[in-house]
Amino acid sequence: MKEIVHIGLLGFGNVGTGAYRTLQENRESIAQKVGAEVRIKRIAVAHPDRQRDIDLEPGVLTGDPDDILNDPEIDIVCELIGGVQPARTYIQTAFERGKHVVTCNKELLAKHLGEVTQEASARGLFLLFEGAVAGGVPVIGPLTTSLAGNRIDKIVGIVNGTTNFILTKMSRDGQEFDQALSEAQRLGYAEADPSSDVEGWDAAYKMLILAGVGLGVETSIDTVHTEGISGITGRDIVYARDLGYTIKLLGTARRNADTVEVRVHPTMLPYSHPMARVDDAYNAVMVSGSSVGNVMFYGSGAGPLPTGSAVMGDVVEIARNLAIGAPPTRPRLTLTPLPVAPLSDIVCPFYLRMTVADRPRVLAAVAGVLGDHGVSIHSVAQRDVDENGAEIILITHPARESSIRDAIIEIEDAGIDAGIGAVIRVEG
Amino acid sequence: MKEIVHIGLLGFGNVGTGAYRTLQENRESIAQKVGAEVRIKRIAVAHPDRQRDIDLEPGVLTGDPDDILNDPEIDIVCELIGGVQPARTYIQTAFERGKHVVTCNKELLAKHLGEVTQEASARGLFLLFEGAVAGGVPVIGPLTTSLAGNRIDKIVGIVNGTTNFILTKMSRDGQEFDQALSEAQRLGYAEADPSSDVEGWDAAYKMLILAGVGLGVETSIDTVHTEGISGITGRDIVYARDLGYTIKLLGTARRNADTVEVRVHPTMLPYSHPMARVDDAYNAVMVSGSSVGNVMFYGSGAGPLPTGSAVMGDVVEIARNLAIGAPPTRPRLTLTPLPVAPLSDIVCPFYLRMTVADRPRVLAAVAGVLGDHGVSIHSVAQRDVDENGAEIILITHPARESSIRDAIIEIEDAGIDAGIGAVIRVEG
Repeated sequence: MKEIVHIGLLGFGNVGTGAYRTLQENRESIAQKVGAEVRIKRIAVAHPDRQRDIDLEPGVLTGDPDDILNDPEIDIVCELIGGVQPARTYIQTAFERGKHVVTCNKELLAKHLGEVTQEASARGLFLLFEGAVAGGVPVIGPLTTSLAGNRIDKIVGIVNGTTNFILTKMSRDGQEFDQALSEAQRLGYAEADPSSDVEGWDAAYKMLILAGVGLGVETSIDTVHTEGISGITGRDIVYARDLGYTIKLLGTARRNADTVEVRVHPTMLPYSHPMARVDDAYNAVMVSGSSVGNVMFYGSGAGPLPTGSAVMGDVVEIARNLAIGAPPTRPRLTLTPLPVAPLSDIVCPFYLRMTVADRPRVLAAVAGVLGDHGVSIHSVAQRDVDENGAEIILITHPARESSIRDAIIEIEDAGIDAGIGAVIRVEG
Repeated sequence: MKEIVHIGLLGFGNVGTGAYRTLQENRESIAQKVGAEVRIKRIAVAHPDRQRDIDLEPGVLTGDPDDILNDPEIDIVCELIGGVQPARTYIQTAFERGKHVVTCNKELLAKHLGEVTQEASARGLFLLFEGAVAGGVPVIGPLTTSLAGNRIDKIVGIVNGTTNFILTKMSRDGQEFDQALSEAQRLGYAEADPSSDVEGWDAAYKMLILAGVGLGVETSIDTVHTEGISGITGRDIVYARDLGYTIKLLGTARRNADTVEVRVHPTMLPYSHPMARVDDAYNAVMVSGSSVGNVMFYGSGAGPLPTGSAVMGDVVEIARNLAIGAPPTRPRLTLTPLPVAPLSDIVCPFYLRMTVADRPRVLAAVAGVLGDHGVSIHSVAQRDVDENGAEIILITHPARESSIRDAIIEIEDAGIDAGIGAVIRVEG
């Protein structure tokens, strides 16, 4: 039983200041909910003497993480540094000293979820990480508690705000990728080196965490198919819209009989899909449960205060248990290693855009090749590009990825004179 | 510490069978998460001998609730009867005998939330009720835990599936209210006596629960403004769509400085609103938190399995605590009584539809009266109805409800020859 729960923050960037401000603004109501005071005792930063636009009591900042890890009074360590090392070592040390851990470190969790949850539970300590996926949107908590009665088969998510902002810009303002990326960088939605977001790695980390927490599956980051949005053109976005679709960077985690699919790639969503209108920098995660059906969680996927809100939610949960002397009470997480299904086995409809010179002849030839590979066509549209060329836009019925790939090779090799401009998977 | 957690169900209708099936299908994974077996020991029903299409072990069914309430082995009582009495007495008895309670009883909670949560916490017992609002969609859990760091100022919800189904039918198929209601009844979405859904009472109960759990505010059902959808015409739905809006039965709970607003009424939502596409029998709840911004929870708001999923989520949480010998750990809920803001003080844009004979003269006169009451017009459209009459459709800028009411009385009294056909509040 505790009257004051002491917190130490490792890192004081965007998320740290967001968590600090969230606690400061709601100190009283948080104390009431917890039944004890929640106090940030120390904050470890690289430059403790740097001027900051936030008022801290003297002595709170330190340049030495050990001032937190070695302080027996500190109950909860919030690891807000990111990256695998030294965060991994700090978390391990925190556990060894009997401290509970809150983290938003998606890379670390994606790569070591099984290990770190195992360490925490072996020592009877909390490891919570609501802020690692979809910022402030409650997803990890509901998946592990409210939905615990369900077998969860599939999770899809728009879990990267930067790429969603860029795709929204391209769609709404008719911009091309480079232009939308520059604007995202100017507005602070994208970093100077945007590769982690734009190439889909950030989303892949988050989908791996969701696969672990939601599907109970452990798999390796190396086996995740990750495809970014830099190849998406304004033209495909316009064609998709005309056909009733929007293009999103969608993460999928799906449990099959003996395999798991974890993949991140541009995906066409029909406008009737509940996630089709998740625009700008918003995130959404849709979970398919055996009893509950489809449930969606939507909100701000990043930003200091939303992510700070997630950190403080985790802190409140741990602090409440400490205040009443209860051990960690989250339902147990068991991870089963499962091989990743080869991408070639995925079955879904496909969007194909082809540049052609002679439409009737090419269409007949393309349809023939697709048919030879068991792929049937759902709809066709044609567009004039200039006096010399035209484009054929096809949406297929659900087909195996391998059949589509084989058909494309054959189309390109067969002298049909059709240039494949884009291949985009379609969510049914 | 327990190796088997025993559950008793009071009631075995839709929700009870949904909870039973959810447990049956996921028995193993639930046991793994909890760290103990979860077993439904007894089920109390009015007619234990009636033939049922579900296989139960002999001796599970009983006609006497006391067989559950008096059984010292039963740890958790799931009250799935509904209505205030005898449910209220059963819950009290369960608490007196040291049993945790899970309930989906929205009427009881709306009317007695403060009392029953107080009783539970005074005895160190869980009272969980995820299934009472939005069926299987996790809302109560995230509000009380993941979002616990936030001050929550506003919650809006589409929390009644029946009326949402009817409004969607009217909008999609051009049906009138009576026709859509009949179809809802035929499909089992509406009851033979549909008043509780159609008049908004069911939604009002749920908004009161959300006001309690989310805003920490206690208020009386008698003071909640509740307006149903039976007055909505197909014509208003078409006009709304032409103006870029959809009509939903929206519940609002908002905390002001010294008052609270809790109200349920048809509301026009712009298509850009994240809740505008919540169609059919789906539910959604949007929460505005001080740090997190707007977060939305979306999914099936009713049905045996979704609500059963919510019940089992609550059961898993309690069972987990019992398995490791921990007391109830949810953050504490403190309710502050606040008076309800008079409806006349509400400020929002309004939609007005008027039948008129002579358009230019009437429009000038109506605009004059509105202006006299400080109401300015945002947009105007006109429609011919037949050779004798036309309609004027106005959307105002945000205005006080009392100003609109006063203006309407004056318009009707002033001999302007404008018949007010509809007044609908607009969500900004």
